[in-house]
Amino acid sequence: MRILVVGSVALDTIETPDGVHSDLLGGSASYFSLAATHFSTIGLVAVVGDDFPPTHLELLAARGIGLEGLERRPGRSFRWTGVYGADLQDRRTLRTELGVFEDFHPVLPAGTGELEALFLANIDPDLQKDVLQRVGPVPLVAVDTMNFWIEGKPLALADVIRSANLLLINDEEALLLTGLKDLVQAAKRIRESGPEAVVIKKGLHGVLALGPWGWLALPALPLSAARDTTGAGDSFAGGLIGYLAGRNWRDRACFATGLAVGTAIASIAVESYGVNGLATDRRGLLAERYARLRQLTHFDLPPVAAGE
Amino acid sequence: MRILVVGSVALDTIETPDGVHSDLLGGSASYFSLAATHFSTIGLVAVVGDDFPPTHLELLAARGIGLEGLERRPGRSFRWTGVYGADLQDRRTLRTELGVFEDFHPVLPAGTGELEALFLANIDPDLQKDVLQRVGPVPLVAVDTMNFWIEGKPLALADVIRSANLLLINDEEALLLTGLKDLVQAAKRIRESGPEAVVIKKGLHGVLALGPWGWLALPALPLSAARDTTGAGDSFAGGLIGYLAGRNWRDRACFATGLAVGTAIASIAVESYGVNGLATDRRGLLAERYARLRQLTHFDLPPVAAGE
Repeated sequence: MRILVVGSVALDTIETPDGVHSDLLGGSASYFSLAATHFSTIGLVAVVGDDFPPTHLELLAARGIGLEGLERRPGRSFRWTGVYGADLQDRRTLRTELGVFEDFHPVLPAGTGELEALFLANIDPDLQKDVLQRVGPVPLVAVDTMNFWIEGKPLALADVIRSANLLLINDEEALLLTGLKDLVQAAKRIRESGPEAVVIKKGLHGVLALGPWGWLALPALPLSAARDTTGAGDSFAGGLIGYLAGRNWRDRACFATGLAVGTAIASIAVESYGVNGLATDRRGLLAERYARLRQLTHFDLPPVAAGE
Repeated sequence: MRILVVGSVALDTIETPDGVHSDLLGGSASYFSLAATHFSTIGLVAVVGDDFPPTHLELLAARGIGLEGLERRPGRSFRWTGVYGADLQDRRTLRTELGVFEDFHPVLPAGTGELEALFLANIDPDLQKDVLQRVGPVPLVAVDTMNFWIEGKPLALADVIRSANLLLINDEEALLLTGLKDLVQAAKRIRESGPEAVVIKKGLHGVLALGPWGWLALPALPLSAARDTTGAGDSFAGGLIGYLAGRNWRDRACFATGLAVGTAIASIAVESYGVNGLATDRRGLLAERYARLRQLTHFDLPPVAAGE
């Protein structure tokens, strides 16, 4: 285990114009792990209820994800129900049932002393902080969060962010967190508050990152067949952290490649419902996505006096 | 004259949190020409009133822009007044006074038989069509438009778009034009309606382009000092068309470099009020922006089996 992820493993029900997809394997830790396992070895910390389908756990195990930290407790699993309109940007949460996740106390597996990266997915910042303290120093601590915690536990969250190397956050939440109206200013403010690097996830507009190397940005791949953007951010994080773990992530070239890896695997994730796109070894398809992303963004420097 | 632009030359008044900037040189043709003149020779077709400050015209002439097609008529010049909030994305038009622009009948200068590119900026599609017919075949005809014409003259606009090689349009207007909710689908639909290439301008999120070469995308440069985004799209168009004119724009590498040039010069334009950023020779600064854009987006392909 080189990467530990602490987050949710859930049952998702997704309503789309194509129909209803019930009790899919979902949750931030599931998406992250299934993406990251293409690049590294992963241990997953989460909790499920006694109603959780064994097939979902078998899928995670079959992909080599360590489940020693996945607690199974009496009660109902965390369930999320969302509905997508014709526009995938237009997502509404219909229901969130926390179930056993409400009393989640992360159980850490053995071997956390040797971690190369820790991903604290979007959970209660008090739990994130507790895990951070128990795990001790890790070369790359990455944190994600959401508006619920920004508004609900801003102080605890600020504490966690201060202790992290890298904050991953979406564009709206970056503005909410900083009270600013501009993503460039927001990224700078976030770095001033502690983390050496910040990655702002902008969905179909790609990512913007600020770190010790300065700015990096990549567009998303244009997709004709995007079906379900649930978990896109966690899949991106899995590709990014999966690639960076054990590498020199403070190096510009290394981080830039990590952003490309995250972008590529997120593009695969959103083309299928739930985690289906990530449930098998996608390294062949990833190579094709890297090449497409390179084609999409590559340009030759113009002559300085072009046209003169 | 290798490029002809037909559009507006206006007096802009811009209210920002920093103060009011009155009677600035504005209009689509002004921004386009001042950007494009870095790369090619430009003739401008527009109309101004007898109140138009000679200094503004001297500025255009000093940059080598051909003003043979700039008509001066009795009456008031086209005036636009806009207000920006703390967020530059938050722009409101306070007043539009058409003045002599209301009866604009483009006067074409001599030499239009030798054009390498024609840019029909955002004006009445009936005028765009009339210019197209009078000019005859040009290797690259690019068209811009806006919601006012999409809603007001959809049939005439469709005619113009069908006859163009390249449509430049912003993201909201691409969705409005196609009735779709997704930019990827919108770009495809636009290409099906005639033009070989479409560039969707997404402001701070950069550009997305679809053409004979497939997809291209670039992020915008992150700017700390963006002050006035008026004319950003026309400056981008000036850089893009300025670079493409006389080149093989159907070639992926050529078009990609054009997108980078447009992105770079737009980043310079928005850092100053009005056209100030473009009023002098910025080739030195452009070279620096090309390098920054390359740094921002460049990544090395990951190993296919990264981490394994």
